[in-house]
Amino acid sequence: MGPVFLDHGHVTTPGGWRAAAVACGIRRAGRHDLALLVSDTPCAAAALFTTNKVKAAPVQYGQALVARNPTGLRAVVVNSGIANACTGEQGAAAVVTIARAVEQALALPADSTFVMSTGVIGMQLPVTRLTQGIAAAATQLDTTSGPDAARAIMTTDTRPKYCAVQVGLPTGGQINIGAMAKGAGMIHPNMATMLCFITTDATVTPAALDAALRSAVQRSFHCISVDGDTSTNDTVLALANGHAGLEPITDLTSPVGAAFCAGLTVVCQRLAQEIVRDGEGMSRFITINVQGAVSDADAHRAAMTVARSPLVKTALFGADANWGRVVCALGYSGAELDLQRVTLHFNGLPVFAHGLPLDFDEDAAHRLLDVPEVLIDINLGLGTGSTTVWTCDFSYEYVRINAEYRT
Amino acid sequence: MGPVFLDHGHVTTPGGWRAAAVACGIRRAGRHDLALLVSDTPCAAAALFTTNKVKAAPVQYGQALVARNPTGLRAVVVNSGIANACTGEQGAAAVVTIARAVEQALALPADSTFVMSTGVIGMQLPVTRLTQGIAAAATQLDTTSGPDAARAIMTTDTRPKYCAVQVGLPTGGQINIGAMAKGAGMIHPNMATMLCFITTDATVTPAALDAALRSAVQRSFHCISVDGDTSTNDTVLALANGHAGLEPITDLTSPVGAAFCAGLTVVCQRLAQEIVRDGEGMSRFITINVQGAVSDADAHRAAMTVARSPLVKTALFGADANWGRVVCALGYSGAELDLQRVTLHFNGLPVFAHGLPLDFDEDAAHRLLDVPEVLIDINLGLGTGSTTVWTCDFSYEYVRINAEYRT
Repeated sequence: MGPVFLDHGHVTTPGGWRAAAVACGIRRAGRHDLALLVSDTPCAAAALFTTNKVKAAPVQYGQALVARNPTGLRAVVVNSGIANACTGEQGAAAVVTIARAVEQALALPADSTFVMSTGVIGMQLPVTRLTQGIAAAATQLDTTSGPDAARAIMTTDTRPKYCAVQVGLPTGGQINIGAMAKGAGMIHPNMATMLCFITTDATVTPAALDAALRSAVQRSFHCISVDGDTSTNDTVLALANGHAGLEPITDLTSPVGAAFCAGLTVVCQRLAQEIVRDGEGMSRFITINVQGAVSDADAHRAAMTVARSPLVKTALFGADANWGRVVCALGYSGAELDLQRVTLHFNGLPVFAHGLPLDFDEDAAHRLLDVPEVLIDINLGLGTGSTTVWTCDFSYEYVRINAEYRT
Repeated sequence: MGPVFLDHGHVTTPGGWRAAAVACGIRRAGRHDLALLVSDTPCAAAALFTTNKVKAAPVQYGQALVARNPTGLRAVVVNSGIANACTGEQGAAAVVTIARAVEQALALPADSTFVMSTGVIGMQLPVTRLTQGIAAAATQLDTTSGPDAARAIMTTDTRPKYCAVQVGLPTGGQINIGAMAKGAGMIHPNMATMLCFITTDATVTPAALDAALRSAVQRSFHCISVDGDTSTNDTVLALANGHAGLEPITDLTSPVGAAFCAGLTVVCQRLAQEIVRDGEGMSRFITINVQGAVSDADAHRAAMTVARSPLVKTALFGADANWGRVVCALGYSGAELDLQRVTLHFNGLPVFAHGLPLDFDEDAAHRLLDVPEVLIDINLGLGTGSTTVWTCDFSYEYVRINAEYRT
């Protein structure tokens, strides 16, 4: 009865959504660099933006737009290649010109277009080429181009990231939630701009959509080290057009609200994990599960510190059950800690308890960890706080000396 | 009249200090893995230790030792290869056994030996081999083995790190300050254990030595991203044996106190920079100078965030004047920021002002940065806070995609 992933689902899988992708010549050799996403009807909107004090021009425009028109958005236009950050008044004017070009091409009301950019900082956008691209894209909108749109917003990504779920509501009927994201996991996944655009045919009030989005992001993008280190452009936008024609979702604690929330969360988690899986040269996908913390916030602090530790990540590249580096990271994480109470398991193998390493066969442990998916279970033994976060190993030559330190 | 670096100066350059290095078989193939450092007379002691909640056994012992006997230390014994961290009661007992072995071999009073270890976490020390090594080292002490001692404490370091300065005191006479350190700059220099042992023949009260050490460390090891992420063993120890026979230093604001402080600071800065220069595969040494912050603390926050940014470091590997990544790091540093007031120079070339990139020749900038030493000058334009920190570029294959992103 929970949300079900749809095979090949994407951002235009929900009803009443169309997309197009075109080349404006910002990127090389005819590569698509502009995505246009349009709803047949006005949408409720919610968005989360970068906490960086340096905000790109489209972020500033988008924050104000969602605040002043939270029920009337119709279109999203995104270019890749140039971020339109640190571009001063000319950059701010470019956002307005682009928004107006979309609204003109599609005969939409003013203030109905969300604009975003990703790419190099400090360059001005080629506005004329973009408006020409928008005019062309407006004639190519269809319900099957969601994957093309996801491809057009890629920068250092090696593959597009999109998905969709169907959610059966407890009161009957079904809604769909689709999404596309970009962001390639380098040292921190967050160091490259992270964008995510979520579409749904559910009917949701802006307040409920905002609360649902914050909850979903807290359990997804904020669990891949996106928090703290943020780019000038990071954005997650959710738009709900009500095309499914079902009752409005106003309360997340209702059964219908909870079902929607669950769907939004799994979509965000899937794409957050896709960002990690696109980590440059990653060889293992690491899930870090922390239990027994004094609070969920403390669990998150502990888990993210382990997830970010270059020494943990290089050890995992070497399939080294290096519990010591995990313990060290826990020690500087700021989380409440009593080493005597900590237990660690690597892919089910107990490696640490009672303040001491356990006696385990290093070769067997190595074979156990020399696999594509590694689960680190950490129990702090102090309380009921818990979390799960995702990261990847460091599999590059530069880590050689770290990976080999124990041999 | 300031401190003068002595050619080939080291930890036994100050008067009344002797050292030895031996192999105990912890490391491979007869490599020296134990250093013994002894003063002819009792020393005033001051030390700073890791803030990690997981503290190695010798750290716990050393903290208590310096607190209970701040004027009677005579010896320092350090092994490499095994960190004696997460070793429980057996590890704690090993520290005591090692200390007593030194005191017995040299006929020193109890509680006069500082013990430290660095290496792999969670393994027990081979105590018998260490005590045999101590007995051998005690017969080999001399005033020329400072460099050998520095070599014996290396782990992932590729070269020993040591120096000494002579300081002429304003009231006449000269004192010497020597030091040895270990710690190799990986992603954060601090991720590997950082140790530094400082010797001097000055006469200094424990309180004045503690204050001088804190000030020197704040301007040296804390400026290479050692703060925050700390290992289980990080330690800086200063010992003053008074062998020069000059007046006691009790007040750092006196001319004599200030001269001593200046000497201690340049010694720590030299070794902190050596740790950065030993960064695995580093190709450029980066100095980041922040001025115009609202406070020194804010300047430090801004500078260290830039210094730690993998995107800044990869850009510098590519000799790319990527001011955008510096601005982005300033934006998430937490420092007070008004982008309109920020100015940036790369090796003297102005690249950013008034919220916008300046018009500069990218090829000329590339040539300017394609050198072993790069200076980034950041003026935040807000106040009088300033700092200088040091880091290195990321020169490994894994950074290829980052370094090439703009091309």
